Amino acid sequence: MMADPTHSKPEPGAKPEPGAATTGPLFARVALIGLGLIGSSLGRVMKRESLAGVIAGTARTEATRQKALELGAIDHAFDDAPGCVADADLVVICAPLGAYADIATAMAPGLKPGAIVTDVGSVKQMVIRDLAPALPDGVHLVPAHPVAGTEHSGPEAGFAELFEGRWCILTPPPGTDARAVEKVAQLWRGAGSLVDIMEAGHHDKVMAITSHLPHLIAYTIVGTATDLERQLQAEVIKFAAGGFRDFTRIAASDPVMWRDIFLNNREAVLEMVGRLTEDLAVLQRAIRWGEGEKLEEIFTRTREIRRSIIDAGQA
Amino acid sequence: MMADPTHSKPEPGAKPEPGAATTGPLFARVALIGLGLIGSSLGRVMKRESLAGVIAGTARTEATRQKALELGAIDHAFDDAPGCVADADLVVICAPLGAYADIATAMAPGLKPGAIVTDVGSVKQMVIRDLAPALPDGVHLVPAHPVAGTEHSGPEAGFAELFEGRWCILTPPPGTDARAVEKVAQLWRGAGSLVDIMEAGHHDKVMAITSHLPHLIAYTIVGTATDLERQLQAEVIKFAAGGFRDFTRIAASDPVMWRDIFLNNREAVLEMVGRLTEDLAVLQRAIRWGEGEKLEEIFTRTREIRRSIIDAGQA
Repeated sequence: MMADPTHSKPEPGAKPEPGAATTGPLFARVALIGLGLIGSSLGRVMKRESLAGVIAGTARTEATRQKALELGAIDHAFDDAPGCVADADLVVICAPLGAYADIATAMAPGLKPGAIVTDVGSVKQMVIRDLAPALPDGVHLVPAHPVAGTEHSGPEAGFAELFEGRWCILTPPPGTDARAVEKVAQLWRGAGSLVDIMEAGHHDKVMAITSHLPHLIAYTIVGTATDLERQLQAEVIKFAAGGFRDFTRIAASDPVMWRDIFLNNREAVLEMVGRLTEDLAVLQRAIRWGEGEKLEEIFTRTREIRRSIIDAGQA
Repeated sequence: MMADPTHSKPEPGAKPEPGAATTGPLFARVALIGLGLIGSSLGRVMKRESLAGVIAGTARTEATRQKALELGAIDHAFDDAPGCVADADLVVICAPLGAYADIATAMAPGLKPGAIVTDVGSVKQMVIRDLAPALPDGVHLVPAHPVAGTEHSGPEAGFAELFEGRWCILTPPPGTDARAVEKVAQLWRGAGSLVDIMEAGHHDKVMAITSHLPHLIAYTIVGTATDLERQLQAEVIKFAAGGFRDFTRIAASDPVMWRDIFLNNREAVLEMVGRLTEDLAVLQRAIRWGEGEKLEEIFTRTREIRRSIIDAGQA
């Protein structure tokens, strides 16, 4: 899948298009802030699809930066955000949500007028809250969330195909330049994703149920097993194939990333936990009182949702 | 993997070995009661590994029996259990737990002296409670539980490799003939499984946490999503890749089988639900009060369990 090379030809007399480059790749220079699973995957697919002319990258540790260079996910490594974003047409923040405010403050003075700032975070209202006030006028903020990932972390966990066939949700604040939004959409389509645009608060509600609650529950159940007497715990590991191992896979996701997601989508997550707790109490009572018909009815309904997901090609 | 052909040579003067056959396959004649995912997989692997001379099978519906015949999972189809078990050296009950008592009563008069009766159910204490009293003297009861499966049901979902590298737990009641236990163990080793022997009550406790609780939680969370407003529900399906889809896979498992598991392992499951609810409350509170360190610590611990499962080869 190649990006359309005609995308950036300006109309005669038009204002310069956000994101600069007028010929060649979609973005002449891209800065990746954070080079973990997502940042390194994005760098690789941008290379493969020629979506970026030059990719600069920064990460907290020298080891991560070196690894990303070796893997070809970036062309140049910088040891801080201000150096990394200099002259960039597109800046992609691929760091835990808790680091956003500091990154924004640090990089703001180095941002080129007309640059687009985007991110890959799993919560979107707080992104706008933390990033927007720090960005200089003339810089475009287009928050994004690729709904893709694995339980592995770090640059070596990345791969160019991670986003293929998956959704990427953009949540531009009201009044965002439409051309900036379209350029970020083109980036994700070029990476193989389907693009959707959504209001940030609505995004956070949808993710609370489809992603944040499942992770919270997986962390809980694996934690419950961790607290068992040692003998029973050894057997839990041995016989994990009965269903438990699927939860351990989810509960192996990056701890800092998930800490920040829960802290930054607090209200929506707590609302969903409340609903879940009520529903669990209903099942618990049905088991206690031996209400077989009720159990069978619930279990039959849930089977249908699986079919819908298979039909939607997201299984 | 071939079964050891020397297994059934009787010592001079020894009592006839349980399960009859003295030369050739491990069991001369096997009866499968129930031909769903497990029954049909077992039939196929017994064929492939020449573990059975002749396989008779029965299922509730004519369609299932015909399908199992077509797939080569059985040699002969019977429309009732008494006909199916006639002259069988091994009877394997592969039906939902709720049907066990009726099956035992129906087949008891047709069982050959010395026959071994086993099963594949996910709860073991109730198996002994429901089956043992109905079986005639001289018939050996060796309950078994292959810890393997998929979310699919029916004979066409079965495959000969289902049990490979997975555990099969035997829970023979005290005093069970050791040779009968060994023959059932040989059957499962022949199917590619690792065999473990455990007290039935302990088995039920281990499975409550490794299998029954994960399924209950998956059913709950998918049920919670099913109750959302229609618009939100459509988006849950669309964006299921964020974690939710793993739960829908588990929650697509056979409703009747799982109804019976929860009804028959009530105490152990409710005990685990209680522990989980407490642990969930702790996480909920940490999110509400913004206790980032506590969240990160819990999420780091759960990551370690995943590593243990990978190390144990059960991932």
